[in-house]
Amino acid sequence: MMAVTNLKRIDGRSMDEMRVVKITRNYLKYAEGSVLIEIGNTKVICAATVEEKVPPFMKGTGEGWITAEYSLLPRSTQTRNIREAAKGKITGRTHEIQRLIGRAMRSVVDLKALGERTIWLDCDVLQADGGTRTAAITGAFIAMVDAVNTIYKQDKAFPVRDFLAAISVGVIGSETALDLCYEEDSHAAVDMNLVMTGSGTFVEVQGTGEKSDFSRQQLNEMLNYGEKGIHALIDYQKDILGPLAWKVGREP
Amino acid sequence: MMAVTNLKRIDGRSMDEMRVVKITRNYLKYAEGSVLIEIGNTKVICAATVEEKVPPFMKGTGEGWITAEYSLLPRSTQTRNIREAAKGKITGRTHEIQRLIGRAMRSVVDLKALGERTIWLDCDVLQADGGTRTAAITGAFIAMVDAVNTIYKQDKAFPVRDFLAAISVGVIGSETALDLCYEEDSHAAVDMNLVMTGSGTFVEVQGTGEKSDFSRQQLNEMLNYGEKGIHALIDYQKDILGPLAWKVGREP
Amino acid sequence: MMAVTNLKRIDGRSMDEMRVVKITRNYLKYAEGSVLIEIGNTKVICAATVEEKVPPFMKGTGEGWITAEYSLLPRSTQTRNIREAAKGKITGRTHEIQRLIGRAMRSVVDLKALGERTIWLDCDVLQADGGTRTAAITGAFIAMVDAVNTIYKQDKAFPVRDFLAAISVGVIGSETALDLCYEEDSHAAVDMNLVMTGSGTFVEVQGTGEKSDFSRQQLNEMLNYGEKGIHALIDYQKDILGPLAWKVGREP
Amino acid sequence: MMAVTNLKRIDGRSMDEMRVVKITRNYLKYAEGSVLIEIGNTKVICAATVEEKVPPFMKGTGEGWITAEYSLLPRSTQTRNIREAAKGKITGRTHEIQRLIGRAMRSVVDLKALGERTIWLDCDVLQADGGTRTAAITGAFIAMVDAVNTIYKQDKAFPVRDFLAAISVGVIGSETALDLCYEEDSHAAVDMNLVMTGSGTFVEVQGTGEKSDFSRQQLNEMLNYGEKGIHALIDYQKDILGPLAWKVGREP
Amino acid sequence: MMAVTNLKRIDGRSMDEMRVVKITRNYLKYAEGSVLIEIGNTKVICAATVEEKVPPFMKGTGEGWITAEYSLLPRSTQTRNIREAAKGKITGRTHEIQRLIGRAMRSVVDLKALGERTIWLDCDVLQADGGTRTAAITGAFIAMVDAVNTIYKQDKAFPVRDFLAAISVGVIGSETALDLCYEEDSHAAVDMNLVMTGSGTFVEVQGTGEKSDFSRQQLNEMLNYGEKGIHALIDYQKDILGPLAWKVGREP
Amino acid sequence: MMAVTNLKRIDGRSMDEMRVVKITRNYLKYAEGSVLIEIGNTKVICAATVEEKVPPFMKGTGEGWITAEYSLLPRSTQTRNIREAAKGKITGRTHEIQRLIGRAMRSVVDLKALGERTIWLDCDVLQADGGTRTAAITGAFIAMVDAVNTIYKQDKAFPVRDFLAAISVGVIGSETALDLCYEEDSHAAVDMNLVMTGSGTFVEVQGTGEKSDFSRQQLNEMLNYGEKGIHALIDYQKDILGPLAWKVGREP
Repeated sequence: MMAVTNLKRIDGRSMDEMRVVKITRNYLKYAEGSVLIEIGNTKVICAATVEEKVPPFMKGTGEGWITAEYSLLPRSTQTRNIREAAKGKITGRTHEIQRLIGRAMRSVVDLKALGERTIWLDCDVLQADGGTRTAAITGAFIAMVDAVNTIYKQDKAFPVRDFLAAISVGVIGSETALDLCYEEDSHAAVDMNLVMTGSGTFVEVQGTGEKSDFSRQQLNEMLNYGEKGIHALIDYQKDILGPLAWKVGREP
Repeated sequence: MMAVTNLKRIDGRSMDEMRVVKITRNYLKYAEGSVLIEIGNTKVICAATVEEKVPPFMKGTGEGWITAEYSLLPRSTQTRNIREAAKGKITGRTHEIQRLIGRAMRSVVDLKALGERTIWLDCDVLQADGGTRTAAITGAFIAMVDAVNTIYKQDKAFPVRDFLAAISVGVIGSETALDLCYEEDSHAAVDMNLVMTGSGTFVEVQGTGEKSDFSRQQLNEMLNYGEKGIHALIDYQKDILGPLAWKVGREP
Repeated sequence: MMAVTNLKRIDGRSMDEMRVVKITRNYLKYAEGSVLIEIGNTKVICAATVEEKVPPFMKGTGEGWITAEYSLLPRSTQTRNIREAAKGKITGRTHEIQRLIGRAMRSVVDLKALGERTIWLDCDVLQADGGTRTAAITGAFIAMVDAVNTIYKQDKAFPVRDFLAAISVGVIGSETALDLCYEEDSHAAVDMNLVMTGSGTFVEVQGTGEKSDFSRQQLNEMLNYGEKGIHALIDYQKDILGPLAWKVGREP
Repeated sequence: MMAVTNLKRIDGRSMDEMRVVKITRNYLKYAEGSVLIEIGNTKVICAATVEEKVPPFMKGTGEGWITAEYSLLPRSTQTRNIREAAKGKITGRTHEIQRLIGRAMRSVVDLKALGERTIWLDCDVLQADGGTRTAAITGAFIAMVDAVNTIYKQDKAFPVRDFLAAISVGVIGSETALDLCYEEDSHAAVDMNLVMTGSGTFVEVQGTGEKSDFSRQQLNEMLNYGEKGIHALIDYQKDILGPLAWKVGREP
Repeated sequence: MMAVTNLKRIDGRSMDEMRVVKITRNYLKYAEGSVLIEIGNTKVICAATVEEKVPPFMKGTGEGWITAEYSLLPRSTQTRNIREAAKGKITGRTHEIQRLIGRAMRSVVDLKALGERTIWLDCDVLQADGGTRTAAITGAFIAMVDAVNTIYKQDKAFPVRDFLAAISVGVIGSETALDLCYEEDSHAAVDMNLVMTGSGTFVEVQGTGEKSDFSRQQLNEMLNYGEKGIHALIDYQKDILGPLAWKVGREP
Repeated sequence: MMAVTNLKRIDGRSMDEMRVVKITRNYLKYAEGSVLIEIGNTKVICAATVEEKVPPFMKGTGEGWITAEYSLLPRSTQTRNIREAAKGKITGRTHEIQRLIGRAMRSVVDLKALGERTIWLDCDVLQADGGTRTAAITGAFIAMVDAVNTIYKQDKAFPVRDFLAAISVGVIGSETALDLCYEEDSHAAVDMNLVMTGSGTFVEVQGTGEKSDFSRQQLNEMLNYGEKGIHALIDYQKDILGPLAWKVGREP
């Protein structure tokens, strides 16, 4: 990665540099867990709710469920986007993001240990400057740990088994870049979202040749950048959680 | 109003005392005008968007339009409320509030001076502790003035003609109270929302006997309290707007 | 009110004069209670249905529920209005009116005495010449009393505790006027709907500065006119109900 | 038909006898044409609206269009039926009836002579005691003639070319019966709706073996009864229209 | 029918001649019964599903239910038709056809013998060249018999009591024609669909004067042609079912 | 890959072996391009439609658009799945798949060379035994080439620039496997879909740890298997297209 460090991006970052990340824990008064996560100008509120029941298809299994909802505030974006409530239906993009967040969260939770309850993760974007879905995953993880902790009973396995964070990576022109802001994203040739665990394994790899296809070698370089970014995010998550970080992955 | 001052409320306020109000102007990066308004624990983001067209029924009239949308974040409330986008329809309560905000805003705007454009006012409640609709009106007014200012041309009439703020007032037990918080509101016998102008006239008077009907005398006392509260809110709005406050009501 | 009596309106009425009111009881064959109410050219069918169950949120409380639905026939209006069934959704105006009617009806009913059942009040406007929502309330009250009577058991409290009627009042130009017809309503500066009980107390006060704001003094004059109109309507309701009028408010 | 005359039905009619029919012309104040049609206890308001445009698929053809909407008031029926507006969608039954009415009306109208305008026929059932769709057709025809007359210019072809009426006929037990009331209809083995012109030709023949299939001979007897009933209805329509009846079918 | 045989149609058939019919039984791997039915270029997949429950209105009656769904693939037609899923609602035409198929199927099934279960009949049109609804009925019958057979217990009455098939017939110009293809159908003066049983009785007679009304004599000729066509279809159904044909109508 | 060849799967294939693939070109009579693609028991009809207009956001750009729709027939699956038209909305899964197909197709088309027209790709699944979305992409490519050819003018660039195919690959237990059938897919630890071009570059890489996360090494092995499978599919596509294969990628 040495070769690229003297290349600069529109916001002055080097190619493998993330934007400043800030997580404000317990941002909302009523939710069982909540954060405001800011990654550069991207700002997302993630709220976790514990509901003492599961969807019909899980009833009687003894297992819990994790589900996510995602929404853009109308003026989170440069031009106003129409509310999905006003349209009366959820767009394909929102569906896709909601499914991604929910699936990612479930991958690090022991649903049996959670018991027959649902964790709702509401991710509402106040300001969108690229990377809202990955910010939502990284922030929702903290809110989920706090929410799970409200129902956790000493001496049991803690239902959250591992850390989880996400980052975007892409190809701009022919250069690989980490953590794309909106302007970069809208011109990127390739756009990839990675979700990884604290153990360094993959949960989701979603790469799309938006403006051009990409080679196996480019794919590898994107994975390298992404691994580096996620490592840093998980370090920060541990910091933010403080003593609670030690419960993640705890055995009974 | 002297007689009631030694009665205390659940949060220690006297009967005719408002909660602490704080308005953060230019809260969002992209909107033409935006605020975060906090009234006690109630927090609402109000964003104003200027759109260079009008709805079909206004086309060709030479006049502009003001419209509002309102939404609760799922965990703005004590128990999670289901997203209207997920339900696929807007509830009656939301419709009612949106119509109220839009009507109130239009009452102080010279639609002719605005020209054929629409101002969208998006009011998104981050935290709901009573009085969200009146907070939305008081905050949206500031966002609207900022948005209108982006299109204002020197030497013309400023399209916003007067100040506008709103407050709730009610009867708890048999006592009149100003600015109800959620717990008070849920037990109130009577609930009233008032919208008034900087000139001290009424724009909306909406009183409902939630748990009991009310006398003409009680109605009068509620109006007295409300007038006092709105006076204070408009003073604060002028403060927040600073020099821009002088444009409100300016003739060509 | 003397000063205004020599002012005349478009239909020849004096400022504080209502239009002719006519209620035809038992208008429909199948409903438990029903009326056709005519106020001038405004005609509304109000039908009351008794259903032996309550909505989910009331189950097991031992209390009943009252709910209302309101609809305009497509050619009740001067130009055809599109059916909400065809649009696939209910407009904000309809939602607002339905909520108002339901809330008003519940304010004079002892839900405990009603028992776990629902009274549906269907208000369908055949012809709309102003004041349809207040006509609906005044008419639905009669339908509701008849429906409640079909389930009433001697020696119990009669679930309807008080009379209830509604009227509109407004400011046309700068003159206060009672019971606005459509043409007046569409030019009114201020529009107010009042719902009051047989005891002379308020249940709803909804005043809107449609075209201009209004002073406290104008508000007071509107309340004076409205009180007078509602008094007359309740007298007429008692007449229509005949001996059944005596049951309203009856203690066990 | 001699053999059946001494058989009596639940309402005392003979097998080939229709219920009493009454059409009140110009029932609504605002519509271009309107009737209240009563057939026994079945009551339907039919309103005709002239709109000076056509649906997209007819634009530029120089021809007009006729379309119908049908709705049951919630308490037109013995037990309350849920509003389609509340359900957010139109049922299959309503769709079927609306299509039938529209198709039937178009069959006697010269769409070219009508010019590029739409006639909306709104059929709202106040009380449903069987035969609402056929009553709607018979009544809507009168409303349509009145509406067409408001745009008719002397010396042109009158766009309505022929009379049109409809009736139901069925098999109860094994007996053929004309004009079924609700109770008969709900027990009928076979149910048939016929729409015919003033010239005695068929526009629609819709026979359904609801509870049992039927033979060719039974089909023929139903057709005989229906022809008789429609003949009587068209005589009555001519009566109701008075001098306007002479315009139907007029050549330029 | 002699007189018409030397008249030829666009595809060379004589007026009372059907197109080639081909039914492929067990077309799908998972369904309890399924066919691909081809009538000329019209191709419909009919799948029967047995579900071990009934709709709410049938619960506890001890009887079963038969219901049908119908859909056109977007490119089954000459120009692409928009998916109903994309529109978010089912068209009137589809509703009408679904109701027709369901009603027709129920007419030959002993719902008591079926027991409390539902047979779903899914009719998906791959290619539409006229007569899709009648092809769907004729094909769905076979799929239904196969599905019913999977739950049939020896020595009981077989729930399907009689054969059932359907055909279209019409008037082109002034000539009666059997089994209209799309091009004929789109120019037909009269269009009629007939559903008949193996016993030669009628289940549905639906004749519509699309472009002109029709006389009693024309109606009779259409019925003659239709009876002939359905007779041939039922012969073919028996052939296709082979030994299973003997179970249809079997008594306990 | 040597090591795994003596491991056998439930259908007897070796780990890196695809199921039998069969593409029937011109399967539908009316579409501009269409295929039935069969991969094992998975069967999908792909139909391409050329529409001479573009969606609003593309108007006036001189460029064309490619869009896809995907649907499961109700009995394409082991248990009946409810139609999205009946539900009134499209599920998240369908949205995701439709977006994937459309994006993939656009990646190999020169939208400028296509001109202002839309290619609709309708993918309807007759039978679903795993890999329906990748089968849809592989089949839709052929339908698209045929459709584009109907509008192609000699001596221009052929708008389709490269071949395109897709395949699924996954981890079952701890073994990598190519082209998962439904039963394998429902037990897979990891599931990945790959879309690649004839040049061997990636268009989409979508890997999901369904039941467990995966290492970088496992990711690499999945990519190896997938590359092999797609190579074989593109060879077959060239075979099927015959002489038309030479036009793909042709310069003006």
